Amino acid sequence: MLYTQALDALLELAFLEDIGSGDITTEATITSSQKAKGILSSKSDGVVAGLPIVEQTFKKLDSELSFQSLVNEGDTVNPGTDIAEINGCAKTILIGERTALNFLQRLSGVATLTSQFVEAVQGYNVRIVDTRKTTPGWRALQKYAVRVGGGDNHRFGLYDGILIKDNHIVAAGGIRNAVQKAKEAAPHTIKIEVEVETVDQVNEALDAGCDILLLDNMSIDLMKMVIQQVGKRAITEASGGITLERVKAVASTGVDLISVGALTHSAMPLDISLNLHHI
Amino acid sequence: MLYTQALDALLELAFLEDIGSGDITTEATITSSQKAKGILSSKSDGVVAGLPIVEQTFKKLDSELSFQSLVNEGDTVNPGTDIAEINGCAKTILIGERTALNFLQRLSGVATLTSQFVEAVQGYNVRIVDTRKTTPGWRALQKYAVRVGGGDNHRFGLYDGILIKDNHIVAAGGIRNAVQKAKEAAPHTIKIEVEVETVDQVNEALDAGCDILLLDNMSIDLMKMVIQQVGKRAITEASGGITLERVKAVASTGVDLISVGALTHSAMPLDISLNLHHI
Amino acid sequence: MLYTQALDALLELAFLEDIGSGDITTEATITSSQKAKGILSSKSDGVVAGLPIVEQTFKKLDSELSFQSLVNEGDTVNPGTDIAEINGCAKTILIGERTALNFLQRLSGVATLTSQFVEAVQGYNVRIVDTRKTTPGWRALQKYAVRVGGGDNHRFGLYDGILIKDNHIVAAGGIRNAVQKAKEAAPHTIKIEVEVETVDQVNEALDAGCDILLLDNMSIDLMKMVIQQVGKRAITEASGGITLERVKAVASTGVDLISVGALTHSAMPLDISLNLHHI
Amino acid sequence: MLYTQALDALLELAFLEDIGSGDITTEATITSSQKAKGILSSKSDGVVAGLPIVEQTFKKLDSELSFQSLVNEGDTVNPGTDIAEINGCAKTILIGERTALNFLQRLSGVATLTSQFVEAVQGYNVRIVDTRKTTPGWRALQKYAVRVGGGDNHRFGLYDGILIKDNHIVAAGGIRNAVQKAKEAAPHTIKIEVEVETVDQVNEALDAGCDILLLDNMSIDLMKMVIQQVGKRAITEASGGITLERVKAVASTGVDLISVGALTHSAMPLDISLNLHHI
Amino acid sequence: MLYTQALDALLELAFLEDIGSGDITTEATITSSQKAKGILSSKSDGVVAGLPIVEQTFKKLDSELSFQSLVNEGDTVNPGTDIAEINGCAKTILIGERTALNFLQRLSGVATLTSQFVEAVQGYNVRIVDTRKTTPGWRALQKYAVRVGGGDNHRFGLYDGILIKDNHIVAAGGIRNAVQKAKEAAPHTIKIEVEVETVDQVNEALDAGCDILLLDNMSIDLMKMVIQQVGKRAITEASGGITLERVKAVASTGVDLISVGALTHSAMPLDISLNLHHI
Amino acid sequence: MLYTQALDALLELAFLEDIGSGDITTEATITSSQKAKGILSSKSDGVVAGLPIVEQTFKKLDSELSFQSLVNEGDTVNPGTDIAEINGCAKTILIGERTALNFLQRLSGVATLTSQFVEAVQGYNVRIVDTRKTTPGWRALQKYAVRVGGGDNHRFGLYDGILIKDNHIVAAGGIRNAVQKAKEAAPHTIKIEVEVETVDQVNEALDAGCDILLLDNMSIDLMKMVIQQVGKRAITEASGGITLERVKAVASTGVDLISVGALTHSAMPLDISLNLHHI
Repeated sequence: MLYTQALDALLELAFLEDIGSGDITTEATITSSQKAKGILSSKSDGVVAGLPIVEQTFKKLDSELSFQSLVNEGDTVNPGTDIAEINGCAKTILIGERTALNFLQRLSGVATLTSQFVEAVQGYNVRIVDTRKTTPGWRALQKYAVRVGGGDNHRFGLYDGILIKDNHIVAAGGIRNAVQKAKEAAPHTIKIEVEVETVDQVNEALDAGCDILLLDNMSIDLMKMVIQQVGKRAITEASGGITLERVKAVASTGVDLISVGALTHSAMPLDISLNLHHI
Repeated sequence: MLYTQALDALLELAFLEDIGSGDITTEATITSSQKAKGILSSKSDGVVAGLPIVEQTFKKLDSELSFQSLVNEGDTVNPGTDIAEINGCAKTILIGERTALNFLQRLSGVATLTSQFVEAVQGYNVRIVDTRKTTPGWRALQKYAVRVGGGDNHRFGLYDGILIKDNHIVAAGGIRNAVQKAKEAAPHTIKIEVEVETVDQVNEALDAGCDILLLDNMSIDLMKMVIQQVGKRAITEASGGITLERVKAVASTGVDLISVGALTHSAMPLDISLNLHHI
Repeated sequence: MLYTQALDALLELAFLEDIGSGDITTEATITSSQKAKGILSSKSDGVVAGLPIVEQTFKKLDSELSFQSLVNEGDTVNPGTDIAEINGCAKTILIGERTALNFLQRLSGVATLTSQFVEAVQGYNVRIVDTRKTTPGWRALQKYAVRVGGGDNHRFGLYDGILIKDNHIVAAGGIRNAVQKAKEAAPHTIKIEVEVETVDQVNEALDAGCDILLLDNMSIDLMKMVIQQVGKRAITEASGGITLERVKAVASTGVDLISVGALTHSAMPLDISLNLHHI
Repeated sequence: MLYTQALDALLELAFLEDIGSGDITTEATITSSQKAKGILSSKSDGVVAGLPIVEQTFKKLDSELSFQSLVNEGDTVNPGTDIAEINGCAKTILIGERTALNFLQRLSGVATLTSQFVEAVQGYNVRIVDTRKTTPGWRALQKYAVRVGGGDNHRFGLYDGILIKDNHIVAAGGIRNAVQKAKEAAPHTIKIEVEVETVDQVNEALDAGCDILLLDNMSIDLMKMVIQQVGKRAITEASGGITLERVKAVASTGVDLISVGALTHSAMPLDISLNLHHI
Repeated sequence: MLYTQALDALLELAFLEDIGSGDITTEATITSSQKAKGILSSKSDGVVAGLPIVEQTFKKLDSELSFQSLVNEGDTVNPGTDIAEINGCAKTILIGERTALNFLQRLSGVATLTSQFVEAVQGYNVRIVDTRKTTPGWRALQKYAVRVGGGDNHRFGLYDGILIKDNHIVAAGGIRNAVQKAKEAAPHTIKIEVEVETVDQVNEALDAGCDILLLDNMSIDLMKMVIQQVGKRAITEASGGITLERVKAVASTGVDLISVGALTHSAMPLDISLNLHHI
Repeated sequence: MLYTQALDALLELAFLEDIGSGDITTEATITSSQKAKGILSSKSDGVVAGLPIVEQTFKKLDSELSFQSLVNEGDTVNPGTDIAEINGCAKTILIGERTALNFLQRLSGVATLTSQFVEAVQGYNVRIVDTRKTTPGWRALQKYAVRVGGGDNHRFGLYDGILIKDNHIVAAGGIRNAVQKAKEAAPHTIKIEVEVETVDQVNEALDAGCDILLLDNMSIDLMKMVIQQVGKRAITEASGGITLERVKAVASTGVDLISVGALTHSAMPLDISLNLHHI
């Protein structure tokens, strides 16, 4: 529902900011009776995400437009691959073009970057997961694009996962106290994750009974040692400074999860264009 | 008002997606009476944009938090520069941290990239302007960040500028017809801009009485020639494939405006962190 | 989208204010199974505007009602002309009657008055345009009705046209400064209009490079002189105290545009009634 | 709450339609630091209504503006009377000017016309009441303005009064049946009003036990006769074609209420202007 | 419209609070292609109310689900009675189950309790009516369920009925003044009801010309005496401490209406379950 | 934020449904200048919950009302205990009375019933938790009241906990498969709970690696046996048919959690009244 509610809200904002009191160029130059076919084509290599949103964008503008995907959500495309086809009133296709592309290019960018990280760790038993470093208003959409790209989602927000960071530890008076308080106060359905930077913190967190360890900005060697020592006592997650260059080495430590902020804050949009064919 | 309405909507979505039914970690580990000072600091070089939005984020969460900027909107910062300070309830500072940073980092990223383009053309009498390639829901905010970075705004949307592109030209039966129709139908307050790719199109557009020429993906040499030929008869705008490397050469053609999609679709977030000091 | 958003909002307000917790008279006296045909008929002479809104009103109340126009939007009607027909549940036709009429009568009133102004200047090469003196919430609808009546729209709001009035001139330190500042700050796509009352102001505005002159409350003779003197150097617009009696004389000055506040602030509703035929 | 909800919604729509992405003229020509005093002055004779709405308009735009009424709501004003004073940032006063005037002029127009009807029947024990012929979205505001002008409100909508009209009578199979059904189904707190055109209908309605008679489009003589005959058995209301010329004669029949659609559908806006004094 | 608006708002809140970012259990364990039939069955005796809301709940979640009632709204059901059937995607049936039941069980509870009160006074010419003691947001729905259960509605809110209580009497300076002020200020379409506790107050209210007497917390004997004395001069309503045990005795006094707060504040939900049949 | 968003929405609905176009009784009988003190007093024994909501209700109606709690949220009250005091305009206190009481009585009812369950299991190391059987729109408020009453919250909705029920088990092809799928698909931060009815199911769920066992409708003896057998291998939760009479016996089995649907679906409102003192 958050996905639906957020998408409705973003589409309303998008139409208002882009169309507002009307597309004066199109109104002036194109007649209402003119029909056209619009083809969305990729101009680079990547993974497509957001086709259902493109369909909704055009349908919300003009319920009589028809939309047909030419690839599946999550498919890999190359320069020249046709992605989808829209048929109907030329005017409304043109009016919706930019909004549809602004969604599709950004979400495909997230899926593409995610798929590159996932591919880089192929062969390792590790999940690539996202973070909360998302564009405000876009979390449900961006986390969806991460899944399309083959990644997994970390907690959705502050409400569905416990992650005790340094500020919580200081405020609670140490890791032991923080974990204890979390166990008392939190719903019994949610695991306790603790951010640790040193071996001492790892031990304190394990003793306190944490379920997940977030290994923050550790060197590859330190991570390896910690993970061996932790064994089955806790799930381990690597975080901090994860790049495409470094992710394979991180995976090789045996860590269970690797969280990558870049998936949602630094993905470049996939280059996609819409070409109109008058019919 | 679009800025205000969009910001209100985005903040509401942002809180819902990030906080939802509550920050269970913070609720569990930090008492309501605990006070803290949060310092926003830059971890890299750039231009700050979005401080008023950070203030609104924290104030909307908890009207008793105090916010103080330590730099001005648009100031250049370096690694270690303190940007702003928030004082009040430790819990609500932590709850708002991620949302505030998600706004501030993205908008500062846009301002930073814009300032780099502006600086690259220093000495030329040219405006760096944005496009409609913005994040849906974020146009007013991103265009604001472009201005903070020293750029100028192109039309806000489809409603406040006429830009006749190839699809309009084909549909209207040529540039002459398209310009003529636009002159008849559009409000008398708005200028007519035509996208052109060849010298013939330039001449046809000028003859038709267009006010602005969008020189689309032209080579530097062609642009130079065209601009000389146009003289004072129309405003000229360069567009398509403008990079930081190439922008100075484009400016050297004497063009009036250079529009850069990357400003809003490919800016990297500025690295900023919030450190909490318990008091 | 503003049209759509405003109409949705007004319909929701209209139903809430008129129907609220229910139409207790109709609920008490008419059974749910009763079918009827409702005929909208004009009781006076005028131009019809708002049929799509009438259709939406009834459809939003009861998606099973059928609606059929008997005249076209913009047609001239006389006492006795049937305008449209609604078929379906008698109860919901009655419940929607007043809201539908409240929209249709007001918008037809605007179209009717506009058509009278347009007819009065027939033969002159001049546009009759509206102003921002609209009913709050109704701008998109009223400007639409102006177009239906044969008029043209001035800028939609403060955001899509520059009109420098006396207050701006005083604040900026004279016409020259004001125009200069506008040229620097405004998007390059928008023309600069300046309100002038005297020949000196006309000259100052032209020298400053304004694109449009708003001739405010000038006598017919003064306007004639000014327009001759301006020639092709600027577009001219007459404004202030334009009545049906005076508009032809104003047009005879050769002015390009005549803006008429009365179109949207003083149009009388067209007298239209709905008669129910039980079937 | 309807008043509040409707006003909030209308203000939001009004700002969006008038200000949208920003007042480009004012932004260009006036600095943010400039202070001014705006004076609202009447340019004709009438009754002022809507001052609290003007205050809210400016306060919502800029909470630091100060607003001071110079007359009371409902006061009579003449050409030159100063109505209110706004102090603060020159830019936001100018940005809000048109919206504030669009509310104030329309509501003052309703109050002014109402006061003329009320004055015309002075000396008679009769109430001037409004109808449901209001501008969609504006009912609460217009009914408020009717009260400011000295009139009374008829039912607010379909939900808080029973008014059996010809369509209900036909559907229910006669006045007797319709009244009977209404008595059975309606809340016991609400009186039954029946629209009648003939003496026979008056008698049938009285026999059926109706509480109020709506005398629809009757001649003065017929009304007199009917009212005498009805005596204390029912409240009487005159309706249909009530003009300022005819209203006194209608009042002289001894009728209890006179409902006037023109109050809300045909009132001309009161001419009011805002003059800015730079300080 | 209030019913519609409130239901839309409650459904949106309900989905957000229950589904939020997604049903992680169902997403994990059930494939999208799986079809199922869900049967709503009663597990106790009662009156069903809310079937249209159940239908809307499932249709809003997934417009391709089909819904079929197996009993009529208002029917009496027993343990084992099948109430309705939903067919379609197993996942969305499960996702909507709890929200649908939370509406249906509560509204059926209100209808069931109402029907018990109505049955208890069978044979007496008296209406069982509800009060304003409803769940905030749910008034339109709960008053609808009262009607389904055979009861009648008192005024909907503060806006469509005048009920002068002790606080109003004290503030106005006695019953006579209060009634007089109400007659002057209120619309002529609404009756005046006065809350009375003693014979003196009854007489004062009748003398002042009230239309309805609310007999508050009177003993059966006192009520009998008062009602006999009032005769046809006013409608009488009993209120305060009305229980299923006592309501018949209250009805025997000859009172016209009995208002029962418990209908909407103390009804137990009807026990209903949804069983899924995989197909 | 859900709490805030839901409360804002419910307050808006509540004012609209109760106040609508205005409180006609209060407007008629009480002058705007009259001041009063309103005292909220308990008329029975219970636990108070909802004071912040009462404050918001009155403040939203009239920001100049002052509100002062006389007991703390969660305090036990008895007949006659004064709970809170509101000072200010008599009219707005009366207008808000019913809405405030409708919130306060219901939430205090939930807290009171919760406290009775909590007290009944005193001495046992067990949590009393709520369910998803809440009033649509009210989940955040009711779960808050459960906490005020000393209970704990189960998962908030379908999004923040995995609870595999019979329908999921059948669809997934057995407990083992269902748990396996949940482990693969769900975020690593959330535990896996399985509903079991038999010893065989308990064993299968434990083998599959579930974290929590929901013992559904088991006898006390069976529960005891199961819990002993489970030991530390999983958290145990008792559910189904938990009454105040039976809850202590359930607690004596050594179960970790007892979930009680009645807390939110069958709590009676606490009897609270507001008395107005004119000052």
